Amino acid sequence: MIRLFHVPLSPFCRKVRLSLAEKKLEVELVEEKYWERSTDFLRRNPAGKVPVLKIDGKILTESAAICEYLEELHPTPPLMPSDVDGRYEVRRLVSWFDDKFHNEVTSNLLYERVNKKVMGSGYPESARVKAGAKAIKYHLDYLGWLLDQRRWLAGNSMTLADFAAAAHLSALDYISDVDWNRNDNVREWYAKIKSRPAFRSILADQVPGFPPPAHYADLDF
Amino acid sequence: MIRLFHVPLSPFCRKVRLSLAEKKLEVELVEEKYWERSTDFLRRNPAGKVPVLKIDGKILTESAAICEYLEELHPTPPLMPSDVDGRYEVRRLVSWFDDKFHNEVTSNLLYERVNKKVMGSGYPESARVKAGAKAIKYHLDYLGWLLDQRRWLAGNSMTLADFAAAAHLSALDYISDVDWNRNDNVREWYAKIKSRPAFRSILADQVPGFPPPAHYADLDF
Repeated sequence: MIRLFHVPLSPFCRKVRLSLAEKKLEVELVEEKYWERSTDFLRRNPAGKVPVLKIDGKILTESAAICEYLEELHPTPPLMPSDVDGRYEVRRLVSWFDDKFHNEVTSNLLYERVNKKVMGSGYPESARVKAGAKAIKYHLDYLGWLLDQRRWLAGNSMTLADFAAAAHLSALDYISDVDWNRNDNVREWYAKIKSRPAFRSILADQVPGFPPPAHYADLDF
Repeated sequence: MIRLFHVPLSPFCRKVRLSLAEKKLEVELVEEKYWERSTDFLRRNPAGKVPVLKIDGKILTESAAICEYLEELHPTPPLMPSDVDGRYEVRRLVSWFDDKFHNEVTSNLLYERVNKKVMGSGYPESARVKAGAKAIKYHLDYLGWLLDQRRWLAGNSMTLADFAAAAHLSALDYISDVDWNRNDNVREWYAKIKSRPAFRSILADQVPGFPPPAHYADLDF
């Protein structure tokens, strides 16, 4: 039995959920209010964050390491290219999203608007929300530019890079913070990835107090 | 010709320098004041940060992706274990240092004390310095605990995990922010890694306005 301790809108958890689902590995999702720092949870993961994956009798943390582990043990269907340059490009983009995009966009929008309220840690800072709303435009343009040259973000097949990007964007889309009209390439790419069976569980997420907009789960948004 | 655009005390650059040196790949180091955001530099790396590696006619960014690329193309001597579980553990620890340790320690101590002055962006915030000084203790204890069970951080051979940790700690040691008396395991581990030929260039670093303490380059500290 595979078990994932997660929170629904965490892009790091979503990336792992997409990997598991694409590889048809069934998982039991357990919501974990990691900010309450329960002793049980800290025993599972001293870093005190999600995702935490219980698999093969082991407890795994750090989403990038988890995804590479799943890829090595369950290589079909592949989410990494077979050539060195291709794998580099996937890892570069996963870092781009989980570091740069995360700091400039996700933490300014999602964490200000949702996490603060859910965790009871105050109100959104408008300067941060504004900075996030500005930064996402530049990132959508960058995605559009990549997709001008490639079918998927890191090349001509779907990889972990697409899942990393879609994990952040889908969480932001849940709070209507993505302007899908900004770039046709990006919209088409997201429509493609959103319609995959692996995406279904993510489109069914519900966060109490934050109902998703109608277009969130609509494949024809 | 391999060329690395870097800044001397950046732990991300140091990790790449250690990998290159361990694999005996000669590199020309070019100091890059990335915060001045020169157009030339931004053309090389739209993320606007270091390290940037010019190798095999390509321009590579994101230190974790760079190190995996070097490992795949130059597997000798290996800095990744040959088994899946071992590789997972290395990647987990690299993320631990480059994300958690970086946010809790390096950015609070090194960035407050040195980067702010070098970049002309103000004075250290004492609350952040205090938080960093507190957090490093907990991290040193964690390292000591790992080394109770293993010869190196991720297992019984030296890996990228050791380089990631040593990259952060050596940069902090340059400003005397590591208490080597806290844990014997950690001190012995650092003495071992510090005495490797790959470490020499790092021990020779000099940042104008910040002379290193005498023990910094001393193998018998």
